[in-house]
Amino acid sequence: MSIPDQGADAAPFPHRHLLGIAGLKPADILVLLDLADRYVDKNRAVDKKMSLLRGLTQINLFFENSTRTRTSFELAGKRLGADVINMSVATSAIKKGETLIDTAMTLNAMHPDVLVIRHPDSGAASLLSQKVSGAVINAGDGSHEHPTQALLDALTIRRRKGRLEGLTVAICGDILHSRVARSNIWLLNSMGAHVRLIAPPTLLPAAAERLGAEICTNMRDGLRDADIIMMLRLQTERMRGSFVPSKREYYRFYGLDRDKLSAARTDALVMHPGPMNRGVEIDSVIADDIHRSVIGEQVEMGVAVRMACLDLLTRHLTAGRGAA
Amino acid sequence: MSIPDQGADAAPFPHRHLLGIAGLKPADILVLLDLADRYVDKNRAVDKKMSLLRGLTQINLFFENSTRTRTSFELAGKRLGADVINMSVATSAIKKGETLIDTAMTLNAMHPDVLVIRHPDSGAASLLSQKVSGAVINAGDGSHEHPTQALLDALTIRRRKGRLEGLTVAICGDILHSRVARSNIWLLNSMGAHVRLIAPPTLLPAAAERLGAEICTNMRDGLRDADIIMMLRLQTERMRGSFVPSKREYYRFYGLDRDKLSAARTDALVMHPGPMNRGVEIDSVIADDIHRSVIGEQVEMGVAVRMACLDLLTRHLTAGRGAA
Amino acid sequence: MSIPDQGADAAPFPHRHLLGIAGLKPADILVLLDLADRYVDKNRAVDKKMSLLRGLTQINLFFENSTRTRTSFELAGKRLGADVINMSVATSAIKKGETLIDTAMTLNAMHPDVLVIRHPDSGAASLLSQKVSGAVINAGDGSHEHPTQALLDALTIRRRKGRLEGLTVAICGDILHSRVARSNIWLLNSMGAHVRLIAPPTLLPAAAERLGAEICTNMRDGLRDADIIMMLRLQTERMRGSFVPSKREYYRFYGLDRDKLSAARTDALVMHPGPMNRGVEIDSVIADDIHRSVIGEQVEMGVAVRMACLDLLTRHLTAGRGAA
Repeated sequence: MSIPDQGADAAPFPHRHLLGIAGLKPADILVLLDLADRYVDKNRAVDKKMSLLRGLTQINLFFENSTRTRTSFELAGKRLGADVINMSVATSAIKKGETLIDTAMTLNAMHPDVLVIRHPDSGAASLLSQKVSGAVINAGDGSHEHPTQALLDALTIRRRKGRLEGLTVAICGDILHSRVARSNIWLLNSMGAHVRLIAPPTLLPAAAERLGAEICTNMRDGLRDADIIMMLRLQTERMRGSFVPSKREYYRFYGLDRDKLSAARTDALVMHPGPMNRGVEIDSVIADDIHRSVIGEQVEMGVAVRMACLDLLTRHLTAGRGAA
Repeated sequence: MSIPDQGADAAPFPHRHLLGIAGLKPADILVLLDLADRYVDKNRAVDKKMSLLRGLTQINLFFENSTRTRTSFELAGKRLGADVINMSVATSAIKKGETLIDTAMTLNAMHPDVLVIRHPDSGAASLLSQKVSGAVINAGDGSHEHPTQALLDALTIRRRKGRLEGLTVAICGDILHSRVARSNIWLLNSMGAHVRLIAPPTLLPAAAERLGAEICTNMRDGLRDADIIMMLRLQTERMRGSFVPSKREYYRFYGLDRDKLSAARTDALVMHPGPMNRGVEIDSVIADDIHRSVIGEQVEMGVAVRMACLDLLTRHLTAGRGAA
Repeated sequence: MSIPDQGADAAPFPHRHLLGIAGLKPADILVLLDLADRYVDKNRAVDKKMSLLRGLTQINLFFENSTRTRTSFELAGKRLGADVINMSVATSAIKKGETLIDTAMTLNAMHPDVLVIRHPDSGAASLLSQKVSGAVINAGDGSHEHPTQALLDALTIRRRKGRLEGLTVAICGDILHSRVARSNIWLLNSMGAHVRLIAPPTLLPAAAERLGAEICTNMRDGLRDADIIMMLRLQTERMRGSFVPSKREYYRFYGLDRDKLSAARTDALVMHPGPMNRGVEIDSVIADDIHRSVIGEQVEMGVAVRMACLDLLTRHLTAGRGAA
């Protein structure tokens, strides 16, 4: 495996932070995906350890539980040689805004080089980036963005389909609460894919038509000729009162089963950011179908994408170091 | 210290996983104990760090809390040079079976080389091993097995008594809920020790007589001439309703005190897998008796045994590497 | 940066543990502060990794939650090259004393070189130090001591004011429950500073006058001509029933605002050990005033001070090793 020469390009990624897909140019996305592609191979080798980030400190600051995403970032940082610290912060009992800023100031004084943040409030990553000296990576902020998820989805698609441009991607389910949907819409539009959103009217955001995507409320209509089907997790924990759909009803109309899937292209790929509610938004048979489902690959690409992000955002610190 | 030459024997341990003691041959157990013996010395040195597992990833996947066992595995992996990731997964609110399989698939996509699992359901480690590419080590699954505990117990006994064969080992207490008892019965029988189970009838499994051990319901009878006394923790958290014994009654009849201990051999060793309920299953004076109790040694042997397991299960990946 | 030659002085710090400031001589404190000063520079460099403690094991044993302090110790250990293990132990449901001793015995058997302990009971660190072979660092025990906090406060002051001797330091607020206050009183008195305690009578310990400090119950009186103002967190979680002050009343009489601050010297520094209750013990405007507040610097000094402690307490193990 060869990791690209770091001296060749002064600033292949002209950003200090990764706060969202919005703000990235197609060239930025390509740099990330191309670099991540190389880290995929590294992760499949026996010796997965590099010294590229040796002596750097990465703090994973999670104000929401997410074992999967935290583990992915932790693995990415450790394999690159960084010292990785996990901080879980409960937000329930205290004023969240104050906590975030005071925590940011506290951590900043410890000289972390990278801060990975997950927070229930939209805009938290951006706020943090204004208070700290190190690079901030948004690992999901409220219903705003989850950029590394969109990048790993894009990498998964590109490796399977050879391209993103011109593909029809159907994003299905709880669009309203989904930062994953939002980041994917930005990225896919930016890279020339055609995006359809499929959801019941109650799970579409108020100005859905302005998101730059076709809107469907019927699954079979929305899946017609789709190359990619991205299922979303039904986030009942973010719903209140009468807006919570019955799981049985939801599955009947919006759960991906073999019947609805038949509307899509015969080589359509099925994706899910996890964790899945089997039998709610997706039939177990389809989730486990090794010909259609690329859910495991998404996770694999996640580690590689996060390594690429960590690498690019610390280039000003690691210049002159050889990778691996 | 010298760690055995890895090129000498192509497959000193012909197993991909460590799911239980059942399935191990006496020769397998001897390989593990002999290697662990050498790691004991390494752990007593100032520099406890090796690079044998450098670049490998170990994930500790704990569906039950166990700070002690998790710490022991974490130390073992880190001292061998692996990148170690801890994952605690709450199982209460969700369908456990699905969670385990989806978690397994997710983790597997991150290319861990070793997965250490603790889970409240018997068979969880075996199920996991069918879904992942790396080595699985069972750190306790339901009331089924806890193989590294039995191995560390065996190592402790062998170092004190010079042998396992021919010894009389009394395992006392809550046999019904104890995976520790089950793994120890397998191992001790396999190595030629004589095993007695001492418990009230309500804390014996239904087919206790088929476990390959002598059954006693009276402590003094069971302890007579014993070389080794293994006390078990009373697992009231796994009991329901009328079957929970009164602690006072339990201590009176089955708690190890000086009087009952006098029935055993004068050089009998007292063991406990921890954490102890002092004054319930064991008198504090005996737990702390440096002539009889080897409870601290068990913990020390635990780290060494886990290093041996990690080493042997990754030999196909580390072939050619020098230890230490 | 140059870390002092370790061969030069056989025992620059003649203590096996750091249990409190009481018991340290001024010369001991100076050795710690001087060494910490050098680690400040190291922490500001790109490559913050050293191999001084390679192969040593540090366990952070926290019986109380404290993400900030734990993170600071974890960073300090990892940057020095140690293997660092975090253990969080809940104490609510069980007999605390027994848990501590059994946990100590268990951990000791795993051969840690350093144990960092935080515990809700005064004396816990001392008790632990009697049971283990490694060095014990007290990271806060009940209302007894929190020595690394007092050391980092002293380092912050010395770097800003050039000295400790002769300064007037006002420690304000919940003295009764504060181990931070207690350690600071010891240290500041030892180094020749003049200490004033400012608190409502209900938040002063019974024998406050024996602490070796001037006592004030009025903020403006106490702050008069102060060089340093140390605000304390109001620890309502340690108060019961009628003794809990109303936050509004407390802020009115003891919260640090611009008006009360005007009584102090114009170049007085404002300190707080964090986490702050903004609007309770301190006005947000003052907490964020970059000319007066050194709260961020305190955190930065914290990592350096903890590295110095870890370094000095393991010198007998690392003798002959080069730093960095």
